Amino acid sequence: MSKIDPIRVRLDAYPIRQEITTRVSDNDGYGHLNGIRIGHYYEEGRASFYRTIGDLAKHPRVLVAELTIRYLAEGFWPGQVEVATGIVRIGSSSFVMGQALWQNGVCIGLCDTVLVHSSNGQSSPLPAHFRNQLERNLLKA
Amino acid sequence: MSKIDPIRVRLDAYPIRQEITTRVSDNDGYGHLNGIRIGHYYEEGRASFYRTIGDLAKHPRVLVAELTIRYLAEGFWPGQVEVATGIVRIGSSSFVMGQALWQNGVCIGLCDTVLVHSSNGQSSPLPAHFRNQLERNLLKA
Amino acid sequence: MSKIDPIRVRLDAYPIRQEITTRVSDNDGYGHLNGIRIGHYYEEGRASFYRTIGDLAKHPRVLVAELTIRYLAEGFWPGQVEVATGIVRIGSSSFVMGQALWQNGVCIGLCDTVLVHSSNGQSSPLPAHFRNQLERNLLKA
Amino acid sequence: MSKIDPIRVRLDAYPIRQEITTRVSDNDGYGHLNGIRIGHYYEEGRASFYRTIGDLAKHPRVLVAELTIRYLAEGFWPGQVEVATGIVRIGSSSFVMGQALWQNGVCIGLCDTVLVHSSNGQSSPLPAHFRNQLERNLLKA
Repeated sequence: MSKIDPIRVRLDAYPIRQEITTRVSDNDGYGHLNGIRIGHYYEEGRASFYRTIGDLAKHPRVLVAELTIRYLAEGFWPGQVEVATGIVRIGSSSFVMGQALWQNGVCIGLCDTVLVHSSNGQSSPLPAHFRNQLERNLLKA
Repeated sequence: MSKIDPIRVRLDAYPIRQEITTRVSDNDGYGHLNGIRIGHYYEEGRASFYRTIGDLAKHPRVLVAELTIRYLAEGFWPGQVEVATGIVRIGSSSFVMGQALWQNGVCIGLCDTVLVHSSNGQSSPLPAHFRNQLERNLLKA
Repeated sequence: MSKIDPIRVRLDAYPIRQEITTRVSDNDGYGHLNGIRIGHYYEEGRASFYRTIGDLAKHPRVLVAELTIRYLAEGFWPGQVEVATGIVRIGSSSFVMGQALWQNGVCIGLCDTVLVHSSNGQSSPLPAHFRNQLERNLLKA
Repeated sequence: MSKIDPIRVRLDAYPIRQEITTRVSDNDGYGHLNGIRIGHYYEEGRASFYRTIGDLAKHPRVLVAELTIRYLAEGFWPGQVEVATGIVRIGSSSFVMGQALWQNGVCIGLCDTVLVHSSNGQSSPLPAHFRNQLERNLLKA
């Protein structure tokens, strides 16, 4: 596992944040939030991110190529979690979305998602207007 | 399908209410909240109900014997839903929990859950303290 | 709760049957299959039913109006469950699908789904070809 | 994203394999298997792995520290997927489980899970008997 960049565990570094209600169905047999169901919080954060940064209908289709979740502390039901989302890196035809998950003032996890712009099944350069929206939502140093 | 008692679609009739964030993962291929995943909202409402009415550790174990969900209108992501929960009927060893689901001022569904107090695999009379808690949380006419 | 018609717990009464792998994620904190996740087995059975009885593209759109699940015994992971599906009743614009869930030779649950044929937001008579397909898949007495 | 070791896309390199029924509820609005729900297939594979390699009751508690999923091709419902599981690397107090997901003869994804043996909230050396079981289940070159 790679070392964690300190910016990634600073909530105010992320441009977009959303509260999500945990559900008893997110728990598993160990009495904590299940590691895969936590993935749905990040998924929800990505969906919020897209809705927030611009007109969804004008977004190009991007595919998830790789998803990495770090587990820093256990999460618990009941209560809220807050998922914070921003852009970590922008390439020519792909970009990395970075997320952090908070509960009760503790950063309990991180998620990196590599997303590729694809057109007719091939990776293709990010359209200028979309790249622009991504740039405006980079993590703030 | 039986006729709906008008009290069931009155939000203020229910003693316990909770807001839940919908998630994009609650959607199905039809672009609305999936009928089974809606079941998790009701499940969450039941869990809140138990936590609210008294000390969980003192509750007897009750089993779901029957669950009936009515679908009155489509639900949508994103946004919140509110689940309202109360007691509809109390028998000697079982009771019926009644719930309603609201979104944007519309009652989109109802749920009735028949719960049975069981002890050693047999239905057994509801303990007096628990029956008392249930009675205090009957739907208000 | 209504009395169970004996035909409903006879596996060979159902025209369509499907095996489903249980998953550890179907369990809940009580160490058995969760009551709501069991709903996905029935949902899967309904989807199989539609694919089996005829050309999906020619099916009219039907909406779930009511779903009732009976819990007859606990279900467990790991292993398989078998969901059996057939038609219980056919009305003019709606019908009832009946299902049973089996694990290790035991019928652990039943599901009744009231489905309504809707056109432009209104219930509307079942098309003749579809009614015909439903009739051929009634539970066998 | 790192380059893929060719051994990882060879099904016969993995000591433990399991078939899982896909469910219509694994689909998302794009008509393919949802990226997070795919995570439950890998979770199921890990659970099978633990049950297969030895007496569960004698296993030490290990925590997921990091989970990385690669998406190589879309997966579809209906049908089966096969998840293949083995050990990729063994450290002093942690190990990496490697998995591949197959559908219709195509490797549609890979998963790497970093698992840490913890005792009283601290990482602690892998017990000898468990390390032995892991070694016997390394990917076969």
